[in-house]
Amino acid sequence: MTVIATITTSVDGYVTGPDDRAGQGLGIGGERLHHWVMGGPWTYEGGHDTRAATGADREHLDRLWTRVGATICGRGMFEAAGRWGGTNPFDGPLFVVTHRMDDAPDPSTGFAFVEGVEEALERAREVAGDRDVSIAGGADVIRQALAAGLVDELALSTAPVILGAGKRLFDGFTEDIDLRIIDVVRSDLATHTRYEVVR
Amino acid sequence: MTVIATITTSVDGYVTGPDDRAGQGLGIGGERLHHWVMGGPWTYEGGHDTRAATGADREHLDRLWTRVGATICGRGMFEAAGRWGGTNPFDGPLFVVTHRMDDAPDPSTGFAFVEGVEEALERAREVAGDRDVSIAGGADVIRQALAAGLVDELALSTAPVILGAGKRLFDGFTEDIDLRIIDVVRSDLATHTRYEVVR
Repeated sequence: MTVIATITTSVDGYVTGPDDRAGQGLGIGGERLHHWVMGGPWTYEGGHDTRAATGADREHLDRLWTRVGATICGRGMFEAAGRWGGTNPFDGPLFVVTHRMDDAPDPSTGFAFVEGVEEALERAREVAGDRDVSIAGGADVIRQALAAGLVDELALSTAPVILGAGKRLFDGFTEDIDLRIIDVVRSDLATHTRYEVVR
Repeated sequence: MTVIATITTSVDGYVTGPDDRAGQGLGIGGERLHHWVMGGPWTYEGGHDTRAATGADREHLDRLWTRVGATICGRGMFEAAGRWGGTNPFDGPLFVVTHRMDDAPDPSTGFAFVEGVEEALERAREVAGDRDVSIAGGADVIRQALAAGLVDELALSTAPVILGAGKRLFDGFTEDIDLRIIDVVRSDLATHTRYEVVR
């Protein structure tokens, strides 16, 4: 079982533009980070289809989805995504790392609140079986997992944009970690690099 | 004539590790940024050959060197590189952007001090003729040129390492710039991505 952290950044390392929140999950201007996911330009107001990715982007997504049996994300990402409208879009359960357990979603939604990355991983491993566990963001949860030595593989998609503001994946991260390039594929909308975390 | 900014960063965006200076030009631990340039591990103390790059790394270097008729770098990089031992390693003159003109090198070295990025570009263009002008770093000079709209192409090499400290390419950079992916090639030691700056 592999723990794979997956996220998209801009060329300057941002995982969102400024003011990411429900209704604009990737912040102002951050839609460009996910052109590759949507198969091209899209807007927060609608007219996008998360299954519209094509070519190398489609293959990258499909390969990840095929591997992954359970997903972990942070509370900030969960809320910025508008709780995905109450329906878990991931294949397998989604464990949401949070300190505030009061408004936990009903277990039938496929969402579960957990209090820390370690606990999330423990529970995700149980349900993933032979499949892998994905840590899908946000930046803070990925940093925590990387710093704790819990990540086996880092799948970074880089969108061809310099955002100049927002939340950075490696903001405040002070560990020195060697990586090994597993695979690099590209479309016109992103470069997808998978790294093995060397221990 | 194309103005191409070329630099290597870590996965977390650093162009040097901490404490970059003459004798350790890429900072502590920063040697790993240039494994791809040296064809593998090397040390500041010696035993490395800047012409030892192979495969996709060699091709990336050769393609850049073939195109470039003049190079620009910042004073910090010039000094951190130990003034390249007094011998210009670049094909064509090197213009060094600096505010301190007092200890300018002799023109016969192929090094010339200039007072700003704009002046450097003007003079580089004159000598480059049909060939391109490269802005080879450091981070500050590339940020200045990008912010001033002077860069046509950004050639970023990404080394498979998270440094966690040092100088970041996009530190303090607040512009929003769209890019277009021209080309992505990889070796085991780096991924080389060339972007066109969209205007």
